[in-house]
Amino acid sequence: MRVLGVDPGLTRCGIGVVEGVAGRPLTMLGVGVVRTPPDGDLGSRLVAVEQGIEAWLDEHRPERVAVERVFSQHNVRTVMGTAQASAVAVLCASRRGIPVALHTPSEVKAAVTGSGRADKAQVGAMVTRLLRLAAMPKPADAADALALAICHIWRAPATSRLQQAEAAARAARPARLPGGGTTVRKVIP
Amino acid sequence: MRVLGVDPGLTRCGIGVVEGVAGRPLTMLGVGVVRTPPDGDLGSRLVAVEQGIEAWLDEHRPERVAVERVFSQHNVRTVMGTAQASAVAVLCASRRGIPVALHTPSEVKAAVTGSGRADKAQVGAMVTRLLRLAAMPKPADAADALALAICHIWRAPATSRLQQAEAAARAARPARLPGGGTTVRKVIP
Repeated sequence: MRVLGVDPGLTRCGIGVVEGVAGRPLTMLGVGVVRTPPDGDLGSRLVAVEQGIEAWLDEHRPERVAVERVFSQHNVRTVMGTAQASAVAVLCASRRGIPVALHTPSEVKAAVTGSGRADKAQVGAMVTRLLRLAAMPKPADAADALALAICHIWRAPATSRLQQAEAAARAARPARLPGGGTTVRKVIP
Repeated sequence: MRVLGVDPGLTRCGIGVVEGVAGRPLTMLGVGVVRTPPDGDLGSRLVAVEQGIEAWLDEHRPERVAVERVFSQHNVRTVMGTAQASAVAVLCASRRGIPVALHTPSEVKAAVTGSGRADKAQVGAMVTRLLRLAAMPKPADAADALALAICHIWRAPATSRLQQAEAAARAARPARLPGGGTTVRKVIP
């Protein structure tokens, strides 16, 4: 499976492409950052992010795109830019029919380091080791994008098993009554 | 001046097209809503919003696009969707080279009703009156999009005067010294 990870941002949008399957050594196919000038107007920055991501999709033709899920807990201004850059990434992939998965920062950290509260240095160190790189990818946004791609490859089998289990549970669930209640079957021994 | 206003949203994205100049009666050229299913995945919703906005831009060829500026004060989930839909609107316009202006909700309310704290009904009533419509545009997102376009047409001369004044002030400002200080001219009587 070839996955393009995106750590969304307007000033620095990290991109990392990883190929492999869970349980086997992974290969990095590319890593980089799409940058736009902080003093540029929003429109030209979004257009530059779109052009950058399109170029990466053209070059690597990933089967999946993994984007960091944005939360609003942090700095308001930063979060707006992140949400807008992530929208562009999701749009570019979906327009091509490439399935998009969103992973939270703690899911990504837990996947590559074993801890959902790992710091940037720890994530960077594990990405370097897992992809057998000579040096840690810089800046952190680039390393984070690779971590997202690794997370997606490793979580894919679990996600698929979960979806199967949910589908099986839906099929086995007792029929809902019109009033919104469910049929309850009491098992009398 | 022909302005396309966008009240961004993933479930309902309001669109309104208004033509005119400040100080003269305005004309509504079109109003509507781009809808996407709330249970759809983010990617296909963003693609649907893009296609909807592109269709409106194709049909009306506006000279300016006015989009509501998104704040993060409200409900977190809603704001993320709004930020993402607004990114798509800004992207579509900028890709065509159409200048984009962002107006805050209170700027829009103040422009059409005289009060930055006016409610939806008041905004809708004024939009109906100002555009000489037979009935209030529904839903509120559609009326808000028209209000954004009206706000932009009316604020344009003020914005332009402000920009001229700022440019004049910059030209008249004493030269900055390399150390970041400014030359101070003392006027001794």
